[in-house]
Amino acid sequence: MRETWVVGAASNRFGKMTESAREAAARVALEALDRAGVEPRQVGYTFVSNAFGLAEHQGHVGPLINTALGIPDVPSCTIESACSSSSAGLHEAFVHVAGGFADVALVVGAEKLSHLDTLTATSYFATGADYAYETRNGATFPGLYATLANAYQHRFQIPAEAFGSVAVKNHANAALNPHAHFQKPITLDTYLRSPVIASPLRLYDCCPFSDGAAAVVVAAKEAVPSPSAEPLVIRASARAGSIVDMHDRPDLLGLPATRAAAEKAFRQAKLAPSQIDFLEVHDCFTIAELLALEDLGFYPRGTAGRATLEGETARDGRRPVNPSGGLKAKGHPVSATGAGQVVEVFEQMNGLAGRRAVARAETALTHNVGATGGSCSVHIFSRR
Amino acid sequence: MRETWVVGAASNRFGKMTESAREAAARVALEALDRAGVEPRQVGYTFVSNAFGLAEHQGHVGPLINTALGIPDVPSCTIESACSSSSAGLHEAFVHVAGGFADVALVVGAEKLSHLDTLTATSYFATGADYAYETRNGATFPGLYATLANAYQHRFQIPAEAFGSVAVKNHANAALNPHAHFQKPITLDTYLRSPVIASPLRLYDCCPFSDGAAAVVVAAKEAVPSPSAEPLVIRASARAGSIVDMHDRPDLLGLPATRAAAEKAFRQAKLAPSQIDFLEVHDCFTIAELLALEDLGFYPRGTAGRATLEGETARDGRRPVNPSGGLKAKGHPVSATGAGQVVEVFEQMNGLAGRRAVARAETALTHNVGATGGSCSVHIFSRR
Repeated sequence: MRETWVVGAASNRFGKMTESAREAAARVALEALDRAGVEPRQVGYTFVSNAFGLAEHQGHVGPLINTALGIPDVPSCTIESACSSSSAGLHEAFVHVAGGFADVALVVGAEKLSHLDTLTATSYFATGADYAYETRNGATFPGLYATLANAYQHRFQIPAEAFGSVAVKNHANAALNPHAHFQKPITLDTYLRSPVIASPLRLYDCCPFSDGAAAVVVAAKEAVPSPSAEPLVIRASARAGSIVDMHDRPDLLGLPATRAAAEKAFRQAKLAPSQIDFLEVHDCFTIAELLALEDLGFYPRGTAGRATLEGETARDGRRPVNPSGGLKAKGHPVSATGAGQVVEVFEQMNGLAGRRAVARAETALTHNVGATGGSCSVHIFSRR
Repeated sequence: MRETWVVGAASNRFGKMTESAREAAARVALEALDRAGVEPRQVGYTFVSNAFGLAEHQGHVGPLINTALGIPDVPSCTIESACSSSSAGLHEAFVHVAGGFADVALVVGAEKLSHLDTLTATSYFATGADYAYETRNGATFPGLYATLANAYQHRFQIPAEAFGSVAVKNHANAALNPHAHFQKPITLDTYLRSPVIASPLRLYDCCPFSDGAAAVVVAAKEAVPSPSAEPLVIRASARAGSIVDMHDRPDLLGLPATRAAAEKAFRQAKLAPSQIDFLEVHDCFTIAELLALEDLGFYPRGTAGRATLEGETARDGRRPVNPSGGLKAKGHPVSATGAGQVVEVFEQMNGLAGRRAVARAETALTHNVGATGGSCSVHIFSRR
């Protein structure tokens, strides 16, 4: 297996795009290639994620993006795995490059839903859950994650402030991130006064619908030995699945797919959680960040809330979590989210994170979940 | 790169399914695994194609299928490349297995559109073309392929009977195929009397909308050295792209993506067209089969029509083309089509083709096109 790097990464500002997903995808891809010092002609395969492309009447978007990049002959496909689509695409890129099937592979995620009414947008999101047994019976993602939050609260009696502290932290980080959908801090008081969406989850427990696009350039060390930016060594690229339906799972304290993917990733990287400097985790709801930190092995079950309240995961804490602002405040443009997490790692490791820079950025982990955990991708990166 | 085999393949009858795509996908996957003598537990990665899953309100279908197979923890993703989705999935499976990232990978394609009205189904199909420049301006696939047919007729003055002979041949083959959507032969007279859909294409020049599901089990030779069936050695797995918009292409005589993928595939297989015993090609319209035979290097430009008229591509001809009946008559359940072509190769090479068996089945080529050629996959198989 060849040593495989992320040599470039870029995103637009998440939030509301006036251009189409395909246009935004091509634009961020060019920026990521430019940051890498790699020419489009060097790309051997393109993996696009655009789970809700049909909302723009457009499938088969890979050749359109490649054509915009001037490389129409390069093969491409679209990769979907609900909210973990572009980290699944990153895994395919890693396999192609590490296995010697391509020297350079491009990963692009883009999503646009802001032109739809909220009900229609919600129905697109809901396709990540099980239609026959969940969605058709009225389940939505706030309701499903509220179930996880209730199970967690029931078991550990954590205060509302523990959930709130995740939101306050991530909004504070996003306020320093020019890519973020929400660039304003909130207080715990604001959190506690916000309306309940699905008990116990309040408005500020929930990530927004965002438009956005992000791109990652993956290359073999031997193919791009001197990229323009400091490359990220891909130390692990691991994925796992799980029973989709929450009612069929033996236990609601955590996501089995996260545990399985994390175990594979740490084994592959030959690293332990204690050796990771900072994390970007999938905080579609505040409960999701707490479960992630425990499933990934950073905190014992039931203790991540207290650690967050005590500031351990803050940007200037012991181990920063979601310095970008996370899905919660940077935003969640479904198919761009996984690639966007890598953009944050790239910018942190390249001194491009400005005022949100973490103290130490030698190793990082990204964690991207599909729906309520039917799929999960974990990647671990280090500087050379 | 490890020697990589297709060790099992199965499909349902294309046409109209009463069950959902996810149910059909799980059923054919179990049948393909059973034919291989491989347990679901041996699968390391699942690649699902279900381009129009949103027509059933369902994305993120991989974990649902894996859960139905009893392997919820196995990672999966959905691969879309318009009508070439499951051959793109087969390529990912090949890369994972040949590169040593998985010992066994499952490829499943499934599609269901028959519960929709024709206009809605057409709008799903149309998402494979360029919405901004083609579909929004009224282009549909019959119209786009009619443009290719007009360009070809203008250059080569071939008679309508040349197109018709493709339809007559493929219907004759499908009549012997229990998986086929249309199991009745047609005459050239029936063809010539059928209504014009988009001049010069008549009703019998066009493939149908079909529901269907097909699965392929890919394994490293060393991981499954003694499968229950005769394995197909994957001699080549190659893909290419092209400008999507036909009005931007320098030339309408053929599909550049087919030429590029074929060149890669023959180089990878170290074989020449003369060494291929039979082919399954992407005949979504009769003109597409003629262009494919020429782009793949089997006939000089402008001569495939005459060869078809003279019976060279018939089941008992010099080199059978589409012994399954092809998209034209076996049917075209978009995401199941590419995997379905491999099912035909598997059945031919395993003596399971019954009355449609070709005389010689030592080597075969499958050719699967996305839309009007924005993507193309070419695979070459041989017996051990």
